[in-house]
Amino acid sequence: MSPNLRLYNTLTKQKELFEPLNPPFVGMYVCGPTVYGDAHLGHARAYIVFDVLFRYLQSLGYRVRYVRNITDVGHLSDEVAGEGEDRIARKAKLQQLEPMEVAQRYTDSFHADMDRLNVRHPSIEPRASGHIPEQIALVEAILRGGLAYEANGSVYFDVLKYNEHRPYGVLSGRVPEDMLAGTRDLDGQREKRNPLDFALWKNAAPEHLMRWPSPWGVGFPGWHLECSAMGAKYLGNRFDIHGGGMDLIFPHHECEIAQSQAGHRTEPAKYWLHNNMITINGQKMGRSLGNFINLNAVFSGNHALLQQAYTPMTVRFFVLQAQYRSPLDFSNEALQSAQKGYRRLMNGLRIARQLAYAPDETVAADERNRQEVNALCEGCTKGMDDDLNTAVVVANLFNLLKKINSIHTGGLQAAALGEETFNRLTTTFITFTEEILGLREEKSANPDELIVSLLELYREAKAAKEYDKVDKIRGYFKTQGLVIKDMKTGIDWAYEEG
Amino acid sequence: MSPNLRLYNTLTKQKELFEPLNPPFVGMYVCGPTVYGDAHLGHARAYIVFDVLFRYLQSLGYRVRYVRNITDVGHLSDEVAGEGEDRIARKAKLQQLEPMEVAQRYTDSFHADMDRLNVRHPSIEPRASGHIPEQIALVEAILRGGLAYEANGSVYFDVLKYNEHRPYGVLSGRVPEDMLAGTRDLDGQREKRNPLDFALWKNAAPEHLMRWPSPWGVGFPGWHLECSAMGAKYLGNRFDIHGGGMDLIFPHHECEIAQSQAGHRTEPAKYWLHNNMITINGQKMGRSLGNFINLNAVFSGNHALLQQAYTPMTVRFFVLQAQYRSPLDFSNEALQSAQKGYRRLMNGLRIARQLAYAPDETVAADERNRQEVNALCEGCTKGMDDDLNTAVVVANLFNLLKKINSIHTGGLQAAALGEETFNRLTTTFITFTEEILGLREEKSANPDELIVSLLELYREAKAAKEYDKVDKIRGYFKTQGLVIKDMKTGIDWAYEEG
Repeated sequence: MSPNLRLYNTLTKQKELFEPLNPPFVGMYVCGPTVYGDAHLGHARAYIVFDVLFRYLQSLGYRVRYVRNITDVGHLSDEVAGEGEDRIARKAKLQQLEPMEVAQRYTDSFHADMDRLNVRHPSIEPRASGHIPEQIALVEAILRGGLAYEANGSVYFDVLKYNEHRPYGVLSGRVPEDMLAGTRDLDGQREKRNPLDFALWKNAAPEHLMRWPSPWGVGFPGWHLECSAMGAKYLGNRFDIHGGGMDLIFPHHECEIAQSQAGHRTEPAKYWLHNNMITINGQKMGRSLGNFINLNAVFSGNHALLQQAYTPMTVRFFVLQAQYRSPLDFSNEALQSAQKGYRRLMNGLRIARQLAYAPDETVAADERNRQEVNALCEGCTKGMDDDLNTAVVVANLFNLLKKINSIHTGGLQAAALGEETFNRLTTTFITFTEEILGLREEKSANPDELIVSLLELYREAKAAKEYDKVDKIRGYFKTQGLVIKDMKTGIDWAYEEG
Repeated sequence: MSPNLRLYNTLTKQKELFEPLNPPFVGMYVCGPTVYGDAHLGHARAYIVFDVLFRYLQSLGYRVRYVRNITDVGHLSDEVAGEGEDRIARKAKLQQLEPMEVAQRYTDSFHADMDRLNVRHPSIEPRASGHIPEQIALVEAILRGGLAYEANGSVYFDVLKYNEHRPYGVLSGRVPEDMLAGTRDLDGQREKRNPLDFALWKNAAPEHLMRWPSPWGVGFPGWHLECSAMGAKYLGNRFDIHGGGMDLIFPHHECEIAQSQAGHRTEPAKYWLHNNMITINGQKMGRSLGNFINLNAVFSGNHALLQQAYTPMTVRFFVLQAQYRSPLDFSNEALQSAQKGYRRLMNGLRIARQLAYAPDETVAADERNRQEVNALCEGCTKGMDDDLNTAVVVANLFNLLKKINSIHTGGLQAAALGEETFNRLTTTFITFTEEILGLREEKSANPDELIVSLLELYREAKAAKEYDKVDKIRGYFKTQGLVIKDMKTGIDWAYEEG
């Protein structure tokens, strides 16, 4: 556990020393994806950033319970919505669109994307649709406290009444009076006492496919409610860290705070962390702007804005080059530069693993290099401790890499650093690259193509009657569980069947 | 859609023509794992078997909604259970064991195992804990029908009363009178009117960690209830196929039928399918017998009963060698034989993909081989249609493989079969191996080791001053995104950074 980790708290607008409520336990909640579409670059940034925080807290010795939800309470209607309830009821269940089938498909593809990005699985990944009783109970608690009201089978949070007791806007800095001036929200407007009020429970129209019974009739929970209910269920009413993208500060997280204050009588989280967005060529990313890039498009290169495919680890490195609260602009140049930087680190990783310390009495101690290495190692920790400044960590890793390369090529002798500093150098480089930043080797080599290359060399050796080489190459195949087949029709390989 | 698919229906004790209720839709429910432990060989068999059914139905053109649940309503108690409710309540949420954290860990490892086994994801994978309102509604419906009763905050199904209207035991063939003679069930015995009655809802003791409010007090659903509630929710009250292991016929599936009849007024499934178990060296597999083998042990070889590691595809082939209702005995010999058979199929797959048809007027038609090939192709379909007899399919594939090898080595000429039969041969072999049986190539070759082999040949070529070969090998590396580094300290490779 580090006494020095400081995190920027959106709630207090300053960097604060991280002091968990119940050390060594840490409870962390991060808003997960809405699973009615594929994950895009913005999701990659958020979940990589909080993955690095998860990894760093674990490496510091904290016992972290990391909850990241799946928002699967969607608003899909049946395709025959216009045809009236009777028609829908008459259709067999299997002929109807099933929202959970859509949600499952995108949950699976989200998981696959996160695995490719080497994002660790959260401790618990609760689904909103799976926590209806908990959400209903929270609505009831808020109603009991007098800070919500029912209207036509829906329940709304009473923002102005809440604001009489506790300020609404503590997280976003918005002021209800100012917001009121600009409201244009039409949905449910006639039911609401005030345009700022938000739905805790919505009455469901007949064609709405996700619906549950409640004390207020058949309906579905409001969007903000799930995180308050699931966070409290798995982490307690008050926990350490709540994270998400900056676009969630208002209204989502503001409403979460109001709900928790009204229903659980406490601020839900001690530290609120928000990552900045990804822009594309300087523009805000948006479906309407046509510059939206899904992760599968990034990985395949199949998008008009992409000059090439970029691997998951290139994307991960690209994200971690920047501190999480800085803007990050996507461009092919930036990704190509990230690809280069990532590969440099991986070459360093291979070398760092190969280096071994050998004491050598004849080598003079090199105090300057020793101090530099120690300062760079400290720089990695200091970078993380300074509000997860991974940009600083990456810069320190590149400087450590120079020392590693220098030892590898003989410019610097390991013995000149001394065993302790040498070990610190390789361990810090490997640990921060792999464990904290979560960058791993992506094999670019295709085994099938390598086998074809070896077969070609085999063919040449055979033609030249170089039988030693022929046997040697046969041996290489054998250790791989493969055999070379010399046939009239040509030379090929096969899996050894024996 | 095949007019010939016949499936053995446990309900009618005979093979029946498969006629879905609402073609082209097919609804299929299979009981998923309880996620409080790692998946073992028995899970592998069940989920591979129903994966093959899922794949076959899809290949026939059916639109299949496949639901496979996660049983996560566990019976974990807090470790300080003996210390009384107050003590538990005083502990911070994060300090308590959280059952969902355990469930999530094993859900994730189950998914990883299934992905390794190339089991396709089901259309919907509902969690029992996520469907409490649906389960409570079903209990209420059964209570309204008078076939259940409440006792001390629990609700039990009234088996004898149900049996007055509809026979209890239709699936298992058991007779209530006989069962009564042998009951020794102690749990909740004083609350039950009859020892055969089973819990629909259980009152939760304070230390029970998974608990929800209900009309009968705080508790949790009975085990049998979740499948009835979730099957109906996603597939309708009556759907086509319900599957699971034979060990689930009684009591689990028998109780499901009773629940659906009592609550939904219908048999839930038209076809009930059950796969046989895996024995180990002729013995029943069981934790108490110490012969229980988890899949990760099989894949790593790390188990006293294993002579070696077996790959996921070897396990898959081993399972599919047998028809799903046959007993299947695990032994090292059987797995080693499966490994050999699997590799033969994969060698066939590589060759089948390479073969191309070329018309040749000078080649005489070979009617005997043509007929044989056509009969073997039909044999694959007939095997599947005969209650998923994958053993027959595999036998036909091996005979098709002989023809493929014969064409490959020149013994049989493609032109002698004619284009249509030749195409049928390769297509049937590839489709049944890959799409229906779901066997895929597992690269045994390690790219890192192949690179080391190529580097060794590079070193030799350089020493022998064979510069053509040196350039050629450098070229091989370049196409893989790699560069060869000639350094004073030796020859090594690196990722190309440019």
